[in-house]
Amino acid sequence: MAAIPKATGGNGDAIGDGPDELTLLAERHLVQPWPVSGSIGAEARGRLEAGEGIYVTDAAGRRLIDGPAGMWCVNAGHRRQELADVMAAQAMELSYNSPWYTTNAPSAVLSKRLADHAPDGLDHVFYTTGGSSAVETALRFMQFANNVKGRPDKKLIVSRQGGYHGSTYLSASLNGRPRDHDWMDSAEGLVIKLTCPNPFRRPEGVGEAEFCDALVAEFRDVIEKVGAGRIGAFIAEPIMASGGVIVPPEGYLVRMRELCREHDILFIADEVVTAFGRLGHVFASQEVFGLDPDMITFAKGVTSGYFPLGGVMIAGRLFEELRRSNHSDAMFAHGLTYSSHPIGCAVALKNLDILEGGLLDHARDVSGHFQSSLKALEDLPLVGEVRGLGLMACVECVADRVSNNPLTLDLEVGKRIDTHCQELGLLVRPLINMCVMSPPLTISKSQIDDMATILRRGIELTTDDLVREGLWHG
Amino acid sequence: MAAIPKATGGNGDAIGDGPDELTLLAERHLVQPWPVSGSIGAEARGRLEAGEGIYVTDAAGRRLIDGPAGMWCVNAGHRRQELADVMAAQAMELSYNSPWYTTNAPSAVLSKRLADHAPDGLDHVFYTTGGSSAVETALRFMQFANNVKGRPDKKLIVSRQGGYHGSTYLSASLNGRPRDHDWMDSAEGLVIKLTCPNPFRRPEGVGEAEFCDALVAEFRDVIEKVGAGRIGAFIAEPIMASGGVIVPPEGYLVRMRELCREHDILFIADEVVTAFGRLGHVFASQEVFGLDPDMITFAKGVTSGYFPLGGVMIAGRLFEELRRSNHSDAMFAHGLTYSSHPIGCAVALKNLDILEGGLLDHARDVSGHFQSSLKALEDLPLVGEVRGLGLMACVECVADRVSNNPLTLDLEVGKRIDTHCQELGLLVRPLINMCVMSPPLTISKSQIDDMATILRRGIELTTDDLVREGLWHG
Repeated sequence: MAAIPKATGGNGDAIGDGPDELTLLAERHLVQPWPVSGSIGAEARGRLEAGEGIYVTDAAGRRLIDGPAGMWCVNAGHRRQELADVMAAQAMELSYNSPWYTTNAPSAVLSKRLADHAPDGLDHVFYTTGGSSAVETALRFMQFANNVKGRPDKKLIVSRQGGYHGSTYLSASLNGRPRDHDWMDSAEGLVIKLTCPNPFRRPEGVGEAEFCDALVAEFRDVIEKVGAGRIGAFIAEPIMASGGVIVPPEGYLVRMRELCREHDILFIADEVVTAFGRLGHVFASQEVFGLDPDMITFAKGVTSGYFPLGGVMIAGRLFEELRRSNHSDAMFAHGLTYSSHPIGCAVALKNLDILEGGLLDHARDVSGHFQSSLKALEDLPLVGEVRGLGLMACVECVADRVSNNPLTLDLEVGKRIDTHCQELGLLVRPLINMCVMSPPLTISKSQIDDMATILRRGIELTTDDLVREGLWHG
Repeated sequence: MAAIPKATGGNGDAIGDGPDELTLLAERHLVQPWPVSGSIGAEARGRLEAGEGIYVTDAAGRRLIDGPAGMWCVNAGHRRQELADVMAAQAMELSYNSPWYTTNAPSAVLSKRLADHAPDGLDHVFYTTGGSSAVETALRFMQFANNVKGRPDKKLIVSRQGGYHGSTYLSASLNGRPRDHDWMDSAEGLVIKLTCPNPFRRPEGVGEAEFCDALVAEFRDVIEKVGAGRIGAFIAEPIMASGGVIVPPEGYLVRMRELCREHDILFIADEVVTAFGRLGHVFASQEVFGLDPDMITFAKGVTSGYFPLGGVMIAGRLFEELRRSNHSDAMFAHGLTYSSHPIGCAVALKNLDILEGGLLDHARDVSGHFQSSLKALEDLPLVGEVRGLGLMACVECVADRVSNNPLTLDLEVGKRIDTHCQELGLLVRPLINMCVMSPPLTISKSQIDDMATILRRGIELTTDDLVREGLWHG
């Protein structure tokens, strides 16, 4: 714990000397994301102490493969000396400047480099502090632009069931995963949600191409029914991440994009997870899906999680339209204290050096092995499907292989598997009945083998538990 | 520019070698906060290259006093070796962990230390990436808690004209400054705005105590009219910052707080600007205003701007209520990828060491000199009022000293003063007809004198310009 400053209470007494003391402090004082009423304000989650490459070490001293790369974000791996160095170096050069009145070199250079990687025309960047604020920026810009263009009714946002776009009031209103809205308020009347494009859950007897046709037809019907004049934007993760790594049917994204173009609806590709190497490219829209969105939101991998940075790539023509408008004084009253942060942009530049300097190639090289190693888990009776692309994958457990019904939420199969896997040296991201895997891109083929071996054993042990408890009959 | 990684375009050509090239890159690729339609996507703001103590250096090599401390945030000053060191050290220890499933030592220790400084009972922290997301967290928690407590209609939020609370759809809906809403959408029907508690703009012939009575009465009337059963929270900056450093009338905050308590309305003190030494204390609510809010939002000074971190201090009793509810599975589906970021919390701990290790004392020591030096500017005919507290102040220019009318927006007097001051070595935060000053807390008395001398000269030169152009007659 060399990096942790000496912890003293208000009275100067040393605190936080031992692991138990730290757990107590977290229980008493720290509230973490997604708590439940029963334990809110009175829980401590398992503590991590250190990271190195694809590994993290927990408070018990166990070394674990970081299966989810933190939260789909530690793309360049833990403990990168060059990222640590650049943070310190930039902090000693210019640690902060107000983006309201000034600018800085790292943000200007980073913008150019991101524009070079983005689909043609997506040549501008607005920086934020993460995915939620990136999505807020994209949506508020759409609202603003349509106000300036004299069409204030064209503001509805179309998202999808199963999608995840953030954790602010507006961005969270787009989310469509189970439990997202049970107890939370949403922006009423601003969002329309389409069917989740999950081939694994398509209606029985319907082929994937037919399923895709139906999804596109649904969007067309919505546009006809609601009116294109009322719809401002369609937002979609090219691959739904926390919805369970949902790879949409072939052609779906491009066809949805064409519908948007026909009806002057902005297509926002939410690449918070899929960008910065997760699918082998800096941005996946064009290179993986042949997609040319109007905006791309990004975060996470842009700094490999070392610094909160996000942003939106925006097509320059959207600004040109506004510059030609009659309202030259119309103010896009939006921006964050930490927009274009010099240290964040410097970290992102160095991270991009790492990606361009071989890590993207490596990610593409090993992704086949990653997918096939995990796909092999489909021979386990608890596993209904293993799906994914690049270095993201999902193992979905089912009650039986005939109906492919998901296990009930109460079983919390993902958590059970995670518990076993942690004993065996792997941190899993449990997601109800699923395990999501998205390791640091630096993972080697033999480390992938380790990961798959542990995951297999964890699923087997979980199956044994479920059978013993009479909760699963295959 | 040692800290900036080698900048190469997609084709490997070196870019960004000279200042002009960087300006071009910013114009072509970078969009900064609060742009206007006429220049959106085609502007570059003045570039800063380096910082040191209270000074920044611009691209022309000019050394400027950082009058606004960035954006009210560089409290410990620029180029602090210990903050740079702790970032790098923590990055090499644990650079990221997912707060969904795990925790880390720095966030646990920081939470305890912040709880020790907060008013009694405000013993829990939820971390975010800045002020907007802190406010979103406070408001979404209020919505969630009232859903769980079976009173889903108690959700309206009361804010004030002149206030500023953020730049996401919901947090921005609370804002009440001129131009904030001209072209932006707001959450309709969720917010009620009260009169700005600005003594300088109180009705003619009304004393300050009487003005305060009227403000409190207005809130009471709103509660009676709307019904306490429909109002969930009141949110207020103890001193309105970007609204123009509005120090409310004596007793106002405590009386508003009592009204909230009577009607079970949560009082959220938005201390994004006033905390972490700006008023001489870690939190200002209790120590400066005798206020005990239900929640305190913070950001900016918590890391002196070196790292995007914000959060909400929340009263533990609010969690206890939920733990006693019948809905133990009710999920507060809220949180950010970068919540409880280990590097951000480590920076905040070191920053707190600096504040506790003498900087708070220093800020309190010099604030009298700071206020009186600026107050002396009231002898200038262009200046209507100088007001402030601690190390934040505002110089408000007026068309004449009899009516105290603000100059029209077109004059942009703040910008004119800023331009002159930059020539003389001082960066000002221009705000329509006002100049806001909130320097790094490390500022010495003689540096305060330098600042006030330059500001005086800048105002004098601006007055000359305005007279020469026939725009001002005093």
